[in-house]
Amino acid sequence: MSITASFRIEKDLLGTLEVPADAYYGIQTLRAVNNFYLSGVPLSHYPNLVVALAMVKQAAADANHELSQLTAAKHSAISEACARLIHGDFHDQFVVDMIQGGAGTSTNMNANEVIANIALEAMGHNKGEYDYLHPNNDVNMAQSTNDAYPTAIRLGLLLGHDALLASLGRLIEALADKGKTFAHVLKMGRTQLQDAVPMTLGQEFCAFTNTLIEDHDKLKRLAPELLCEVNLGGTAIGTGINSDPRYQAIAVRRLGEISGQPLTLAADLIEATSDMGAFVLFSGMLKRLAVKLSKICNDLRLLSSGPRTGISEINLPPRQPGSSIMPGKVNPVIPEAVNQVAFEVIGNDLALTLAAEGGQLQLNVMEPLIAYKLFDSIRLLQRAMVMLREHCILGITANEAHCRALMENSIGLITALNPYIGYENSTRIAKLALDSGRGVLELVREEGLLDDITLTDILHPENMIAPRRLPPGH
Amino acid sequence: MSITASFRIEKDLLGTLEVPADAYYGIQTLRAVNNFYLSGVPLSHYPNLVVALAMVKQAAADANHELSQLTAAKHSAISEACARLIHGDFHDQFVVDMIQGGAGTSTNMNANEVIANIALEAMGHNKGEYDYLHPNNDVNMAQSTNDAYPTAIRLGLLLGHDALLASLGRLIEALADKGKTFAHVLKMGRTQLQDAVPMTLGQEFCAFTNTLIEDHDKLKRLAPELLCEVNLGGTAIGTGINSDPRYQAIAVRRLGEISGQPLTLAADLIEATSDMGAFVLFSGMLKRLAVKLSKICNDLRLLSSGPRTGISEINLPPRQPGSSIMPGKVNPVIPEAVNQVAFEVIGNDLALTLAAEGGQLQLNVMEPLIAYKLFDSIRLLQRAMVMLREHCILGITANEAHCRALMENSIGLITALNPYIGYENSTRIAKLALDSGRGVLELVREEGLLDDITLTDILHPENMIAPRRLPPGH
Amino acid sequence: MSITASFRIEKDLLGTLEVPADAYYGIQTLRAVNNFYLSGVPLSHYPNLVVALAMVKQAAADANHELSQLTAAKHSAISEACARLIHGDFHDQFVVDMIQGGAGTSTNMNANEVIANIALEAMGHNKGEYDYLHPNNDVNMAQSTNDAYPTAIRLGLLLGHDALLASLGRLIEALADKGKTFAHVLKMGRTQLQDAVPMTLGQEFCAFTNTLIEDHDKLKRLAPELLCEVNLGGTAIGTGINSDPRYQAIAVRRLGEISGQPLTLAADLIEATSDMGAFVLFSGMLKRLAVKLSKICNDLRLLSSGPRTGISEINLPPRQPGSSIMPGKVNPVIPEAVNQVAFEVIGNDLALTLAAEGGQLQLNVMEPLIAYKLFDSIRLLQRAMVMLREHCILGITANEAHCRALMENSIGLITALNPYIGYENSTRIAKLALDSGRGVLELVREEGLLDDITLTDILHPENMIAPRRLPPGH
Amino acid sequence: MSITASFRIEKDLLGTLEVPADAYYGIQTLRAVNNFYLSGVPLSHYPNLVVALAMVKQAAADANHELSQLTAAKHSAISEACARLIHGDFHDQFVVDMIQGGAGTSTNMNANEVIANIALEAMGHNKGEYDYLHPNNDVNMAQSTNDAYPTAIRLGLLLGHDALLASLGRLIEALADKGKTFAHVLKMGRTQLQDAVPMTLGQEFCAFTNTLIEDHDKLKRLAPELLCEVNLGGTAIGTGINSDPRYQAIAVRRLGEISGQPLTLAADLIEATSDMGAFVLFSGMLKRLAVKLSKICNDLRLLSSGPRTGISEINLPPRQPGSSIMPGKVNPVIPEAVNQVAFEVIGNDLALTLAAEGGQLQLNVMEPLIAYKLFDSIRLLQRAMVMLREHCILGITANEAHCRALMENSIGLITALNPYIGYENSTRIAKLALDSGRGVLELVREEGLLDDITLTDILHPENMIAPRRLPPGH
Repeated sequence: MSITASFRIEKDLLGTLEVPADAYYGIQTLRAVNNFYLSGVPLSHYPNLVVALAMVKQAAADANHELSQLTAAKHSAISEACARLIHGDFHDQFVVDMIQGGAGTSTNMNANEVIANIALEAMGHNKGEYDYLHPNNDVNMAQSTNDAYPTAIRLGLLLGHDALLASLGRLIEALADKGKTFAHVLKMGRTQLQDAVPMTLGQEFCAFTNTLIEDHDKLKRLAPELLCEVNLGGTAIGTGINSDPRYQAIAVRRLGEISGQPLTLAADLIEATSDMGAFVLFSGMLKRLAVKLSKICNDLRLLSSGPRTGISEINLPPRQPGSSIMPGKVNPVIPEAVNQVAFEVIGNDLALTLAAEGGQLQLNVMEPLIAYKLFDSIRLLQRAMVMLREHCILGITANEAHCRALMENSIGLITALNPYIGYENSTRIAKLALDSGRGVLELVREEGLLDDITLTDILHPENMIAPRRLPPGH
Repeated sequence: MSITASFRIEKDLLGTLEVPADAYYGIQTLRAVNNFYLSGVPLSHYPNLVVALAMVKQAAADANHELSQLTAAKHSAISEACARLIHGDFHDQFVVDMIQGGAGTSTNMNANEVIANIALEAMGHNKGEYDYLHPNNDVNMAQSTNDAYPTAIRLGLLLGHDALLASLGRLIEALADKGKTFAHVLKMGRTQLQDAVPMTLGQEFCAFTNTLIEDHDKLKRLAPELLCEVNLGGTAIGTGINSDPRYQAIAVRRLGEISGQPLTLAADLIEATSDMGAFVLFSGMLKRLAVKLSKICNDLRLLSSGPRTGISEINLPPRQPGSSIMPGKVNPVIPEAVNQVAFEVIGNDLALTLAAEGGQLQLNVMEPLIAYKLFDSIRLLQRAMVMLREHCILGITANEAHCRALMENSIGLITALNPYIGYENSTRIAKLALDSGRGVLELVREEGLLDDITLTDILHPENMIAPRRLPPGH
Repeated sequence: MSITASFRIEKDLLGTLEVPADAYYGIQTLRAVNNFYLSGVPLSHYPNLVVALAMVKQAAADANHELSQLTAAKHSAISEACARLIHGDFHDQFVVDMIQGGAGTSTNMNANEVIANIALEAMGHNKGEYDYLHPNNDVNMAQSTNDAYPTAIRLGLLLGHDALLASLGRLIEALADKGKTFAHVLKMGRTQLQDAVPMTLGQEFCAFTNTLIEDHDKLKRLAPELLCEVNLGGTAIGTGINSDPRYQAIAVRRLGEISGQPLTLAADLIEATSDMGAFVLFSGMLKRLAVKLSKICNDLRLLSSGPRTGISEINLPPRQPGSSIMPGKVNPVIPEAVNQVAFEVIGNDLALTLAAEGGQLQLNVMEPLIAYKLFDSIRLLQRAMVMLREHCILGITANEAHCRALMENSIGLITALNPYIGYENSTRIAKLALDSGRGVLELVREEGLLDDITLTDILHPENMIAPRRLPPGH
Repeated sequence: MSITASFRIEKDLLGTLEVPADAYYGIQTLRAVNNFYLSGVPLSHYPNLVVALAMVKQAAADANHELSQLTAAKHSAISEACARLIHGDFHDQFVVDMIQGGAGTSTNMNANEVIANIALEAMGHNKGEYDYLHPNNDVNMAQSTNDAYPTAIRLGLLLGHDALLASLGRLIEALADKGKTFAHVLKMGRTQLQDAVPMTLGQEFCAFTNTLIEDHDKLKRLAPELLCEVNLGGTAIGTGINSDPRYQAIAVRRLGEISGQPLTLAADLIEATSDMGAFVLFSGMLKRLAVKLSKICNDLRLLSSGPRTGISEINLPPRQPGSSIMPGKVNPVIPEAVNQVAFEVIGNDLALTLAAEGGQLQLNVMEPLIAYKLFDSIRLLQRAMVMLREHCILGITANEAHCRALMENSIGLITALNPYIGYENSTRIAKLALDSGRGVLELVREEGLLDDITLTDILHPENMIAPRRLPPGH
């Protein structure tokens, strides 16, 4: 191995390669970099994945040490290296493309090699002197990519889950605040884009709030349920070949302790090695959140349409000039961006589904794409929710007078009179109002169908936006 | 074979089965019916597929007769049977589920058996007396499912193509008529749901027209380009094993003559046997049409929103009462149904894509699903366009005064004044108008920024909705 | 109303129509049939939906009667009609297309009209004499489509859920049985389609079993969690306008009693009226099941490939002749059909997702498509699992000797020797075996690397397919 | 404006911001960066998009200068700046996220601001001194984002098209070479993963070749057909408001000259402003290519499965060690990566479809996502094809003897004997062979069904892999 040159020579089954002298990764990582020049997105883009890989390696090393397969010196050096990675150092050494063949072998070897070389230096050796500590024999001891990699993906997703929940939680709070602020703003509800019956703007924002609370609860419960079951110790195909019978339990216990996640060992490791069901359902849940966010943003864009020729019940805070040609135009750019994130997440769910379906026999070789799309969807959703809250929801104001005027002018008010003047009268008045352009209330008054006291009572806000006792004989 | 009982006994490789005595299909069809109880949609649901199968069988019989492989008597009886099917008879005998394993073998055998039994009766024999004329040896002579079936799918799609184009053509005409009718209706254009600059309602409907004309042209050209190349004569895997070297050319020529479609033989029959590319792209084109129809219907629903609290620039013809609880409510039910058809077509495109990707080696075994989804998408689109034209477009009316009032009240008018009063003045006036609720024109007049003659000239309709010479010094 | 003619005249907001004299549906249903000629799939295709609609109408009638809004005579007649529908009568009267505009209003009115006319006859009146009992005023009392329809969809899905679970359960049992039967069949495991390490065929089928058990458990829990929360009593937009404050609780309680399902009232009825989240996630779960079934069927097709030039470890029972041109060919038609069902379900999930995203403001107008796709996916999966079990899994046999021969001849055996002869020796032997075509065991023996007793011990089946204590000093 | 500090102050409609002193972008770009922290993929990731933006700005400046709206000095400075961008300089200044609200306004302003500041420095001014040359008034003169941005996207896609075609072309050549090399390698064809009839490995690779040639031809024709029609000059909504009537023709002519692409002006600019049809169909075509590449790679993985327990007809070149636990294992990592790229492209197509459907009224606000997904799909496909050719196809070798042995041992040979010994004999022999494990040829010989000369003739390679004259009386 050259030590004075700008590279060192490393060797594997297929021969030798020149590895940059300052690289902590080794020959197998380099082969993967040469092979897979695709998305341009390296592993380091997702720090939680790197941290999770380090935790898995630490847990395995602990188990191997406990089972007397790994010396104290090696264990200590590997532990030092893992700690550095968990702390956030050396992430730039994770250079393999997220899209890769080999079912994650390159990711696993990238971790093995980086850890080995950090550890070697900690032991006083040079990078690449694998006789003292070997990426495969020592760092990867008792592991196969086929158990270490899926375990790291699951753990990585769990590590990012709190941030996702936190963003969602803060968005929910912001919507709930608006629900309270707008509780007194009477407006027309709309179904099928047609005027329906009165409600409050507060009720509308409370509905946004509550629909997301459901997703917060569901995500909070589903993530551990789906992701905490790992197959560490299954080795190549889940039979645990070449591993000690005690290894699985020790490694999983240690991984739980290191990560603080309630990890458990899957009951059937052969099944767990090839099964992508947890990822499919978790992505389905992310898609559901995306669909809801998109629906909310569609509504925000509709309700703020105008300023003069649209609905214009609310105002979104201006974020940037909307046009170079149209003076004063301001656009709902934040909800528009959320819509696009939602579409991306739905597209990711499809790519992931195809990858899950494409697995064959004892392994799903498309797992790198599954990991990529999940980490991507989570990050996009997390950022989109921060953006939506900060740059949009917090600054929304209501055009209260306009909301009320639209409602009072609406033919839909007639629905509230229905139980009092009868369906036939209501239909006739509705038609008359539509044809003449007049208001239903003035027509009702004109015809003397109801006295003013009753009318006032019926049209009292709290009487229109909730159930109420109906007149007898209805 | 029992002739007095309510069934006859037929035999194949796997043994015997009781076939209903009056059934024209035979044992292999019956096995398929027993095997595939899935979608509940039988082949007969798509008459063009049945007719295309009969045409393929006729063309093959013609070629085999010409090559002296099929006797005149058998050829005559088969021809009689095919003619009956092409005429529309016996379609109820095509009973196999559209979703089936076996890469279409059951569909092919359903055709072979029905034709054989009709032919047998025409020859004076009983159904099932296959010694006189055999579904495989005679009707299927020189064919494999793997060439006859894809050829029939392509032909069946071509047979339905004129109806699709005709519906699209008539929809285009209806939209173009509205474009003319509304040519004088001035209104605000909207971008990002925000008021932009003036246009006419006629221009809006012309845009609908022109976007669909592009699809009409594209579909008209793509269908023959994609579907006219057939693999008839490739037999099992495209090598043409067990077929006469002259057979391919004769069969394809005859099929072209019988169907009136400009069919050609694929250059590489091995490639053509497994290639689903034409179907993927054709479905992609149908998806594009679906996306455009959905966008148009989204716009129609937005433009007709109201009647009082929405945009309400146009009225869709009422088609059915909209609510049992809200008197006088009428909903845009026709565009809503078109949206759903569009979503279904997009879903079909995905199912078809998965099926195309799932093909392996010398055949795509998922071809039945591909056929099913294409026939389904075409029929749905065809019916949706008839519905949209008849029940919606033809009856649309404009709220001309409201359109003009919205425009005149709009802040967006200021854009037209921009070249005359300058960007700074425009922005200031726009902001003033928004804050005060006043009109931009009255503010411009009030400030004496433009005289009335110039203002009238600028705001003259034809000056706002097209390019115009700008003032010097701009 | 004409009574001697073949039709009767009915009237609604938009005018009059001739309804066939023997039809139990009325004018609004007829309008919908005229409007929506699309999928060709009527409501009656999904009996659980019809039954659920009847149960909702019964529950509402019970609540209205209890609240003294509906007379005993009317209540009794409506109850009689609902019972008939729940029993399975009159389903052919549910004629509206599953794809429809109007957010389900036509479905709701189809139910209201059919129930009204059955009830009228029970009361001694003629069909259409709505003065005695009215579809809207009486059958639909205190309901809007916007609460009755989504409630019926949820209930209809729950009613079909046991059948889905039962099919899945029986499929699981069949796979588990094969797992036991094949427990002693040693074979090679494969990762990335390359020979990996030994396992048993029983382990492979156990993995199929266990992956589906997870879905059975998940589906069993998710269905009630997602679908039992209903919005009955929300009326038009969830505010409960025009309903008695006590109505919601009574109606939902009664519906639970009638259906035997643990239904609850949603906490926020405005949210619940437009929220499609439960459907999106439930469809995501169905998609997951489809993905798993497709993966299993892909494996079955691979493992049974051959008979001479493929893997040929197992035999699927022959179901139908596989080819008209290739004597003796039998194809894996059942798994092939399951694959296609899976693709269809994935396509349905997409169409449903688009529909969910397309909802606006206080209602999701695309709900009919959502209902259609869910009922379709459930039925397809249910039937596909019955087919897979009966026509395939039960009859699978193993080529035990071939499985063992493949394994014994495999280079992958070397992995088991790894801890004993070292990684370098293993790699060298592996390469030598590959280049020479010889077996790894004979090479190991030849080189005297291991004595026969050790070799026999290592290669003892139970030692290769599970973890084992490794030699010291590893 | 501060010039000594590390930032300068810029101002827009919404107020002021501190822009880094060395940034060539300005305040509106900065607002967008602050607003949209989403994908992490900046505009500069796609150099063709940046170059296309510069070309559009150049063409507009040329037209404005020709129409005497832009001074020679400004025109010269803008031209200098555009040339620098086209040359590849300053691309790091395109910092806005590919996912953005505002329908591309931020991208357009990023270009306007960078060009303005480069031009200002060329004129001897400081960055930010917009009085001398203004991003909006001068660089964006006569343009709206709504025409400049879609025009740049189309042009950018066209600029990258040759590279895509070149990669595809070279992949085709490599496959064609293998087709020739393997022309003599006899093997079994397989349908439905079951042994079918003989073919050559050369025919199999020729089919790969030809299926991609079709896509090469189609892509070559579709790209200009779909993308060359631009809406430059339509300004805000396609009416061309505030532009000179001569501007459109001049600007488009100049853009064609600058780019060397055969651009034309769309016939209906209002339609063209909101229409995403071209992108939908182009993506559909990319999806088709992805599906074909995925199918080819699935086949390569199947054909190279083994080495001992799979099909093993071909060998893929080893690219990296396949396992840390299984000595000597090498995996088909390159085709596996292509599969994943294909799934990503299919997911991109879906995200794009959703964005296209989501457009409303006069503009499609989701266009940034459409652009992003198209640029991404093209780049991924281009890189994947380079990888597939270099790292896989070029190094594929055939296991010729094994191929022939599989074929000679196959029961499928019987099909070739069918016309000579009859279907009944063939079926009987096939069954006998399957049950006994013996070869069909030895059984035919044993029974004396055919003499050796005839048998040799039938089994002569060229006689089995193509049509041939059949015996009389067949």
